[in-house]
Amino acid sequence: MAKEVTKRSENYSQWYNDLVVKADLAEQSAVRGCMVIKPYGYAIWEKMQQVLDGMFKSTGVKNAYFPLFIPKSFLSREAEHVEGFAKECAVVTHHRLMTNPDGPGVVVDPSAKLEEELVVRPTSETIIWNTYKNWIHSWRDLPILCNQWCNVVRWEMRTRLFLRTAEFLWQEGHTAHATSEEAYAKAEEMVNVYAKFARETMALPVVVGHKSPGERFAGALDTLTIEALMQDGKALQAGTSHFLGQNFAKSFDVTFANKEGQLDYVWASSWGVSTRLMGALIMAHGDDNGLVLPPALAPIQVVMVPIYKSEEERNAVLDKMYELKKALEAKGHSVEVDDRDTLRPGFKFAEWELKGVPVRLAMGPRDLAAGTVEVCRRDTLEKISEPLEGLEDRIIGLLDDIQKSIYNKALAFRDASIRKVDSWEEFKEEIEKGGFLLCHWDGTAETEARIQEETKATIRCIPVDSAVCMEEGKCVYSGKPSHQRVLFARSY
Amino acid sequence: MAKEVTKRSENYSQWYNDLVVKADLAEQSAVRGCMVIKPYGYAIWEKMQQVLDGMFKSTGVKNAYFPLFIPKSFLSREAEHVEGFAKECAVVTHHRLMTNPDGPGVVVDPSAKLEEELVVRPTSETIIWNTYKNWIHSWRDLPILCNQWCNVVRWEMRTRLFLRTAEFLWQEGHTAHATSEEAYAKAEEMVNVYAKFARETMALPVVVGHKSPGERFAGALDTLTIEALMQDGKALQAGTSHFLGQNFAKSFDVTFANKEGQLDYVWASSWGVSTRLMGALIMAHGDDNGLVLPPALAPIQVVMVPIYKSEEERNAVLDKMYELKKALEAKGHSVEVDDRDTLRPGFKFAEWELKGVPVRLAMGPRDLAAGTVEVCRRDTLEKISEPLEGLEDRIIGLLDDIQKSIYNKALAFRDASIRKVDSWEEFKEEIEKGGFLLCHWDGTAETEARIQEETKATIRCIPVDSAVCMEEGKCVYSGKPSHQRVLFARSY
Repeated sequence: MAKEVTKRSENYSQWYNDLVVKADLAEQSAVRGCMVIKPYGYAIWEKMQQVLDGMFKSTGVKNAYFPLFIPKSFLSREAEHVEGFAKECAVVTHHRLMTNPDGPGVVVDPSAKLEEELVVRPTSETIIWNTYKNWIHSWRDLPILCNQWCNVVRWEMRTRLFLRTAEFLWQEGHTAHATSEEAYAKAEEMVNVYAKFARETMALPVVVGHKSPGERFAGALDTLTIEALMQDGKALQAGTSHFLGQNFAKSFDVTFANKEGQLDYVWASSWGVSTRLMGALIMAHGDDNGLVLPPALAPIQVVMVPIYKSEEERNAVLDKMYELKKALEAKGHSVEVDDRDTLRPGFKFAEWELKGVPVRLAMGPRDLAAGTVEVCRRDTLEKISEPLEGLEDRIIGLLDDIQKSIYNKALAFRDASIRKVDSWEEFKEEIEKGGFLLCHWDGTAETEARIQEETKATIRCIPVDSAVCMEEGKCVYSGKPSHQRVLFARSY
Repeated sequence: MAKEVTKRSENYSQWYNDLVVKADLAEQSAVRGCMVIKPYGYAIWEKMQQVLDGMFKSTGVKNAYFPLFIPKSFLSREAEHVEGFAKECAVVTHHRLMTNPDGPGVVVDPSAKLEEELVVRPTSETIIWNTYKNWIHSWRDLPILCNQWCNVVRWEMRTRLFLRTAEFLWQEGHTAHATSEEAYAKAEEMVNVYAKFARETMALPVVVGHKSPGERFAGALDTLTIEALMQDGKALQAGTSHFLGQNFAKSFDVTFANKEGQLDYVWASSWGVSTRLMGALIMAHGDDNGLVLPPALAPIQVVMVPIYKSEEERNAVLDKMYELKKALEAKGHSVEVDDRDTLRPGFKFAEWELKGVPVRLAMGPRDLAAGTVEVCRRDTLEKISEPLEGLEDRIIGLLDDIQKSIYNKALAFRDASIRKVDSWEEFKEEIEKGGFLLCHWDGTAETEARIQEETKATIRCIPVDSAVCMEEGKCVYSGKPSHQRVLFARSY
């Protein structure tokens, strides 16, 4: 019997958890809020890393590694930074355990108290800018374009697998520049890298925009974001890129001599995406049968299930399958032949559907005799009988088509969900239906806060695409003058 | 002026530090014992990861990710494990900072004390076996072959960049099996993967052997190791693979129903290599001019330095260099053209020697006219003039030759340093000269401890190559009967 998945229409949140756990992506660990990423889930994350890493490097970024720990005092150097989010964090206070003198087990050795507490990095601007101080003296040392793939910890109270966990994996890029323009351009370049990755690799359409001042990263002068829409109509922030101005350079006293020989503070950007992308991938494309993985990220792109009664039939079908597997692998595709002998084909079908494998081939002795194979595509669940002759090329074409179809489906859904709303009554009604509302906003934090209080909707972003939103109008809430529409939604 | 490197003969330890810091591999951070791995150093580590990861995967291993934190109580479940090394570790006791009520900055919020302290993983056997408990029920769930690439923390008192740091990067494989034989075979397979990687990729000859019981990993029934020899005659343990028996399965109650339906505890192996390999690489091959990188791990395999006076000459030479670069990159090689206009060629030569780039090409207008180029190989510093005609293929051949030559040089040095020693007087004399001493040992921990006390030498391993060491004799220290020679050395 295949594992049962809750229907989206019954309980979307439970459906999500079912997919994560039953498709073997991740599970809760014994440590509150920290997850175990299982091999199948990690294989998807590795594919994401590989593609993103190549994209970063092609823009000149190099990887490096900075310490896990940050001295407590560093966090308070950039005032907004610590106020913003750095307080809910894991604090290391001691460096030794000792045998419990009063019973079994081990206890913290009170004599091994640290002089200054260390915080497990919630993000690394502070320790990195403290390091950059020693790397930067002159304009010749700039730009510095570093990225690190690492774990970070934020002590979240309510956690959900991939979407919000105490420990998560991410990349954080930190760049240093001689001019404001160059640092800003880098922040823009990287949010566009994220958008391209989301579209082309994750098959996920996103809106690129600026965060409102209230939603900016703590310490940033501008935060750019990619916002995606999930099937339940809620938005998900999938990646951010920050223009940090000279804030961290000033806090850590990082100056450089410019070409004219004058000292100036260094300009900065930082940008990151995390294992949260896994959550976006699952929720954007999955269906009631399980995951629907875009071929570009599927650890297994093609699975083959043999159908047989006798050992002889089994061997004949498997021989053909291994031949096909070899041909597809030679062309760079990942293929699994499910030759487990103890499970029925129907069980296997359900399992691979749950795991979101893009293409499933099934073949029995009759197919073999007829020179055909049954091909099922995961996105539409459509089945067709295909001739074996020239099958490799058609499967490669099919993978390509699935990648595009998944994107187009998500795009159509997203586009249909963006509505212009011009009255407060309509706003309150429409926000209940989910999706993005494109509305005028008077630009004040007060209005933003009230809208959130009354509807739980937040400004997801001020889209960069000015054709969509640059127009004069009146704020949907206050009626005050507005020069631009912004995107509201409820969100993860 | 190029950066000055201390000579090995003057101060080997300072020479090592100079190479690490001046070749831009790594540096100390603001956090005691934690290093920053700089882009050039990280690029070497990434190449190591890539090759090793491919080797692991080809043995069926899959990557996964387990939590950074381990509940304190987990560490005391396996008694030997906690006694062995788990005590010097970073302990998280609180999960929040707060604004200092009595002054500037932030302080630990006393109300945010954790119920149970968390330890930053020094190694992950405990949290992983606690997870495997839920994954394993029947023989059908076995084997489990997981690896993770991650950071770990051991609160070392004396640290040295790459060789011993409080935080380091590593991979740790953890496998679960139905039988003792299978688990043992996996531990053996993986130590052989490490040995092959060391030889073929790092150009580093190693001795594969068993640790003596006293040097085993805490909780293991057998520890296999690869031991390398550094140029100062000290040994360096470069990777270990452990047969854990059923120890962790028993501590975390991980049982499975075997094919006969009987419950049994699961058998385990674990194995790891770390950024310590970077230290081995530097110390095994470097010379007084800097790093000597084997081409298989060099982030830049070929560097080209143009020589010119006029702008016209510069353009002509650079055009030719970019053409060559393109041709070499098309064949999968990494090439840098050093077109910096503010530095003299001699400075550039010294810098690329310091950074260990295997092949350097220099070309000026006279070379261009003659259709030649000056080729310098880093390992021997030999310079020859080569015709441009057919240069790509000869460079590729040269890289291959350098890889082999570096290995052969290290092998000759290592082999010359292994001496059979049969008397205690000779032992004390020979150990001062460095290298490996192959001696009879009576098999007792007492003798092992005394030899270490008197000479600082430890048993690096009991070699698996029985031809080398299986013979009857008398212990070099106690004179008691011995059935096998073992390898002694002073070590890092």
